[in-house]
Amino acid sequence: MTTRRAKLLEATCRVIALRGVRGLRVEDVAAEAGVSKTLIYYHFRDRAGLVTSALEYVNDRAEGYVAGADDDETPVRELLLDLLSAEFQDDTAVRENSAVWGEARAAATFDEGLRPTLASLTERWIVDIAELIADGQDEGSVPASVDSRAAAVRLTSLVEGLSGRWLAGLLTTAEARAHVAAALERELAEGPQG
Amino acid sequence: MTTRRAKLLEATCRVIALRGVRGLRVEDVAAEAGVSKTLIYYHFRDRAGLVTSALEYVNDRAEGYVAGADDDETPVRELLLDLLSAEFQDDTAVRENSAVWGEARAAATFDEGLRPTLASLTERWIVDIAELIADGQDEGSVPASVDSRAAAVRLTSLVEGLSGRWLAGLLTTAEARAHVAAALERELAEGPQG
Repeated sequence: MTTRRAKLLEATCRVIALRGVRGLRVEDVAAEAGVSKTLIYYHFRDRAGLVTSALEYVNDRAEGYVAGADDDETPVRELLLDLLSAEFQDDTAVRENSAVWGEARAAATFDEGLRPTLASLTERWIVDIAELIADGQDEGSVPASVDSRAAAVRLTSLVEGLSGRWLAGLLTTAEARAHVAAALERELAEGPQG
Repeated sequence: MTTRRAKLLEATCRVIALRGVRGLRVEDVAAEAGVSKTLIYYHFRDRAGLVTSALEYVNDRAEGYVAGADDDETPVRELLLDLLSAEFQDDTAVRENSAVWGEARAAATFDEGLRPTLASLTERWIVDIAELIADGQDEGSVPASVDSRAAAVRLTSLVEGLSGRWLAGLLTTAEARAHVAAALERELAEGPQG
């Protein structure tokens, strides 16, 4: 990605995190980035292109939080906890990512144009978590009775639910992380039929 | 509540469910309800009063979904499942409630004025669920090792997370309900220390 494009997307995320997706106007992004509206249309074609590119950008940025932990030495359970808790950090960039993402989810209720991007990024996240759970089953640290896909859907949905409360100040960072750890422990235990 | 006030709040919910909280203008609600803006200001003082009253109204309406099940004969686990799954129904009013509620949560990230109402309604929901879990512990159907408050926070957060996906068309009603049932089973199992 060119630096200029990245800068435009960073400005878009700041505007979304402050005012939401539905209030987003291309002129606000242009003002935030200190460029002309024409340049934004040149890079992203239209407002919808700008919003979906911003979502993909946020997603890539979020994957960077935990890149350091992603090696073969880290036990699967620890890696899962790191990945799922990474959304809860007392850090401006993390909070901004989370706000942009939460906004996009809420806006998708109303704006069908956002749904394909939302669906594919959500699916990517679910598959990442499900594959890690399956890795844990291969290495024997996660019971074979766990349904990796269903557990991944629930764990990522829980993170999204906790995230809304955390952003609204109803939960502290430590509380959100403790709930993720407890849910992970329950999802990776022997199942009812196990 | 007078009929007129209820009608104004129903109109407010329809407008929020269609366009979101942040796009809400008092004139749109007046047009939807077929009344003057003055009447709305008379009942709710200002836009913020209208939005928080609408949230409380939605909450009362949602409590009505499951009122029928709330008797002493119903086993606690069944009642919990009914209450938590009630958000997922193929019914326009339920979907509208859920959309209004999701919107309010997302908007509270940006609008601090919404947070006290959101906090107190969320707390009421958590306490309701936690008390039911404690009832189950009293009657012996739920293990004493379960932390009723923490389980209630996770279960209600999961419902909120699933709700966002359900409203955006990423999950079917049946899938959302199955995930709630599975999470409930895990939360009400013997704990790791149990």
